[in-house]
Amino acid sequence: MTVQSKTAARPSTVTTGPIAGSHKIYSSPEGHPDIMVPFREITLDPTAKEEPYRAYDCSGIYTDSTATIDLEAGLPPVRAQWIARRGFNRITPRAVKPEDNGNIGDGKLVPGCPAELPIYGGKPGQMVTQYEYARAGIITEEMIYVAHRENMGRHKMIEGAEERVADGESFGAEIPAFITPEFVRSEIARGRAIIPANINHPELEPVIIGRNFLVKINGNIGNSAVTSSAAEEVEKLVWAIRWGSDTVMDLSTGRNIHNIRGWILRNSPVPIGTVPIYQALEKVDGDASKLDWEVFKDTLIEQAEQGVDYFTIHAGVRLKYVPLTAKRVTGIVSRGGSIMARWCLSHHKESFLYERFDEICDIMRKYDVSFSLGDGLRPGSNADANDAAQFGELETLGELTKVAWDKGCQVMIEGPGHVPMHKIKINMDKQLRECGEAPFYTLGPLTTDIAPGYDHITSAIGAAMIGWFGTAMLCYVTPKEHLGLPNRDDVKTGVITYRIAAHAADLAKGHPAAKLRDDAVSRARFEFRWQDQFNLSLDPDTARNFHDETLPKEAHKVAHFCSMCGPKFCSMRISQDIRVEAERMAGMEEKSKEFADKGKEIYLPQEAAE
Amino acid sequence: MTVQSKTAARPSTVTTGPIAGSHKIYSSPEGHPDIMVPFREITLDPTAKEEPYRAYDCSGIYTDSTATIDLEAGLPPVRAQWIARRGFNRITPRAVKPEDNGNIGDGKLVPGCPAELPIYGGKPGQMVTQYEYARAGIITEEMIYVAHRENMGRHKMIEGAEERVADGESFGAEIPAFITPEFVRSEIARGRAIIPANINHPELEPVIIGRNFLVKINGNIGNSAVTSSAAEEVEKLVWAIRWGSDTVMDLSTGRNIHNIRGWILRNSPVPIGTVPIYQALEKVDGDASKLDWEVFKDTLIEQAEQGVDYFTIHAGVRLKYVPLTAKRVTGIVSRGGSIMARWCLSHHKESFLYERFDEICDIMRKYDVSFSLGDGLRPGSNADANDAAQFGELETLGELTKVAWDKGCQVMIEGPGHVPMHKIKINMDKQLRECGEAPFYTLGPLTTDIAPGYDHITSAIGAAMIGWFGTAMLCYVTPKEHLGLPNRDDVKTGVITYRIAAHAADLAKGHPAAKLRDDAVSRARFEFRWQDQFNLSLDPDTARNFHDETLPKEAHKVAHFCSMCGPKFCSMRISQDIRVEAERMAGMEEKSKEFADKGKEIYLPQEAAE
Repeated sequence: MTVQSKTAARPSTVTTGPIAGSHKIYSSPEGHPDIMVPFREITLDPTAKEEPYRAYDCSGIYTDSTATIDLEAGLPPVRAQWIARRGFNRITPRAVKPEDNGNIGDGKLVPGCPAELPIYGGKPGQMVTQYEYARAGIITEEMIYVAHRENMGRHKMIEGAEERVADGESFGAEIPAFITPEFVRSEIARGRAIIPANINHPELEPVIIGRNFLVKINGNIGNSAVTSSAAEEVEKLVWAIRWGSDTVMDLSTGRNIHNIRGWILRNSPVPIGTVPIYQALEKVDGDASKLDWEVFKDTLIEQAEQGVDYFTIHAGVRLKYVPLTAKRVTGIVSRGGSIMARWCLSHHKESFLYERFDEICDIMRKYDVSFSLGDGLRPGSNADANDAAQFGELETLGELTKVAWDKGCQVMIEGPGHVPMHKIKINMDKQLRECGEAPFYTLGPLTTDIAPGYDHITSAIGAAMIGWFGTAMLCYVTPKEHLGLPNRDDVKTGVITYRIAAHAADLAKGHPAAKLRDDAVSRARFEFRWQDQFNLSLDPDTARNFHDETLPKEAHKVAHFCSMCGPKFCSMRISQDIRVEAERMAGMEEKSKEFADKGKEIYLPQEAAE
Repeated sequence: MTVQSKTAARPSTVTTGPIAGSHKIYSSPEGHPDIMVPFREITLDPTAKEEPYRAYDCSGIYTDSTATIDLEAGLPPVRAQWIARRGFNRITPRAVKPEDNGNIGDGKLVPGCPAELPIYGGKPGQMVTQYEYARAGIITEEMIYVAHRENMGRHKMIEGAEERVADGESFGAEIPAFITPEFVRSEIARGRAIIPANINHPELEPVIIGRNFLVKINGNIGNSAVTSSAAEEVEKLVWAIRWGSDTVMDLSTGRNIHNIRGWILRNSPVPIGTVPIYQALEKVDGDASKLDWEVFKDTLIEQAEQGVDYFTIHAGVRLKYVPLTAKRVTGIVSRGGSIMARWCLSHHKESFLYERFDEICDIMRKYDVSFSLGDGLRPGSNADANDAAQFGELETLGELTKVAWDKGCQVMIEGPGHVPMHKIKINMDKQLRECGEAPFYTLGPLTTDIAPGYDHITSAIGAAMIGWFGTAMLCYVTPKEHLGLPNRDDVKTGVITYRIAAHAADLAKGHPAAKLRDDAVSRARFEFRWQDQFNLSLDPDTARNFHDETLPKEAHKVAHFCSMCGPKFCSMRISQDIRVEAERMAGMEEKSKEFADKGKEIYLPQEAAE
């Protein structure tokens, strides 16, 4: 089902309706009826005698069949009351300038999103950020929200939670069996977690990023100079969150960049991240040497007022590190990194992002824009992994993390890139050490360079591993990486692949709820509840379609066999049949053991008798 | 390009012709002009000033544009002379019986492959297996062949090989920087590697499976009761090896099983594995309780004479383990395992495979069929991973490994299955310990159960990890796992995905040649040699098609930018541009450092001056 917006020139269609076999529910933490946390409830076959399965859900109201979608009005501002109560200054927004949209001619200008919001800024000395509240010992609504969300809406610890935590290997993370708002606060106060939540993004459904919480994933969207339009970008957002993207980065570099971002933000229930240097570069006609603090600062304010939740800031690309990249196999592959390296070399000066870092903090604190400290010198090939340039930058990011915390900001750290398996853990360990356990946010890493076209897979291997080791958020890689821009199918493939990596990491870490879903799928599989197996999976449509390619008839979905073995030969069915016999046999063994045990009591061991 | 065989009713078409950008070459080890080892040479752009890249190649003559393909005649018997020199008995083959092809009516019987071969069997007391030759200190032609193959046809150690080995983490494997035939012999003699090579499969291009060699992958084909035909199966074989399947298992369970296997073997340059119990069960009309030693033994001989290179034998499914599966979430999921469990329970007797293991060894030794000791009790879900049933069976497999070695047989061990990341390494460590370092051959493992439709990915994560930890061969999983039978696209996706996992493992272990390919791709990428990047990748067709979706024009394949950033914004180009400047700057730093160093010499340190 698609929904038409009123004006044809504006974003026209987005995908709506629930994911197959499920519907949206809302649950409130005890004592907070005003906080409504969304979940996706998957209905199971009555024969299963199981409760419906409740899944984490970042898809927003687009999957709520009772919701009315109006892209021009934007999403309901679920945080508006909470923000209003905090008494921020209502400010006059910076006026939109022609260069914000790339000086595009009127005929080609995408109109801005008409949804109007009051724009807020923190007063000097006033607490604004979640970090500041947490440090002050105050639990915000956002913290209560994410605690309930991480608990999957449960009001108390679920059975077996502590055992599952104990069964995991979390490499020093401290995952609790039940998440309290106070735990959330303490993790944010320690800098170990962030809730990216600009006070000008009231539509946001808060999400927490930290290694003691569920591993999150990010999907990238964005138009480039070569291709893509506004309508496509909003639909890409909706499409990415439908399949499970916890945050979305808008990496647009073309024209109409300001107005498209407005449409995205007003219609996004997930945190939106950007790389402001991209737009700043557009404003100076793509000539990195012309960048300066003023244009960058102006861009930060422009985007912060629009409601962007986190900014990638490549402040670690210092002049002294640039020569370290000269002998690399693939040089500098980060766009932001190469822009700043060129600026540094052109001017033979230290990076203005590094030199002005205090001022950047002040701006970001004012709106609670979280830092995503960019890894501009990340390796672009296995050959360059873990080299002096990469690790030098990481050390600088550690230094900047402490500055940002002192300034009251929330911080996460971006990481590589391309790293062979045996060099992944050293990245995680060094990041935790250098950056005081600030959340790590990694791109992959890709574990080999030889499979363009399949880099969602080369990187899912590394992503699952680094997620297990402690990365808090995994940036997706699509099959088109290195080759072209992802289309709709690529975005979905990238998101599902990264949901797999994140979930595999949660399982290995011992997250108390992760294994419940695996077990639900496994029970459905063993009991031939085909529809349940499809609906409980990350992508019910694909699972169902694949099944139907070989056995299309509806009757086969209740059949006690599948196409792999055929009706005569099903190991699952044989196994079910033998279960009864085996249990009887086990019973006999138990009896015989009991008898043996009793025997011991009657005939005391030699030692005891003496 | 496809080749028609002469008779329409027989397998009619197979895919031939080289993989894009490459051609077949043959290389002989020094002093052995009769041994011709195939490689795939990838031609690079002249601007690259690099030698052509030489890749391992298991695709057979199907990718040799100079070869004539005649499916009815079968492949050239490259091993025929070597085998003939060993003086085996020429034996009268067992007559084909109607039940071998499932008692199918004449009208539906697939004719046998007309290629005629002498059938050999070892004489009592005569050395037959590669293990026996190795133990006797004899280096066979097969050992010389695989050494040259593993060295990628190089006659001496390549530059940097020792450094790359030292840079890896191999968890106690002992990968040499250069492979000698003597090293191959010693690994086989220790039981740490096998060359599956039935003396009745002279068409085989030998391949070595062991943890001190390149990680290998297996692809499964096979018709089932529900679907698939002979022609499809031969094409599936050719298709699977085209993309990199080192061995192929024929898991057919339907009719015509004997004759289809003949077509496969006579046209297979890779080792073929089977699970004989499947066919044995067909012969007793699918009733596991009717199985007995005679029908199984007859099936072993039937398949061994046809030339099958390795048999999966589920001899570790002992009666005492069956009750341990009763409380599992997914019971027994191995077909072979469930068949044997049912047999044991029906008769309340120990498995005849276990009881007759000596006799099985005698038969397999006679033809040098390698053991693949099946993990009939492998977990079918994360919930059941590493349980008492699984590990009990593994201990029995360890016991049987020693029996098989004593009998002169080559052995590898099958492993799971479904295992979360944090429980993978314990599988590898236990297997090495219990089974005396016999090669491990694992299915995945799948690291989560929640993504049917994407289980090539859930399992590639586990496969890459266990390959790194020491697994010698990875059995592929296709996207259709749990849902249906793989089609042509699924087979390719499964093979490429597992080539990625195997290569990521080789890289992490420090294999001396693995990184060369990554570096070649990375250089091509950095230098905008698009065609080279495509051709060096595992799947040039997909890489090229993905690129062309966004930038289809030929001119774009020499463009110094791509669709991700567009012409104005390319980080790679910026990076190349700054390299020159950075090198100059590094030169300046070097000078300044030199000056400082000299300064130290002039002004002696205080301590030294005293």
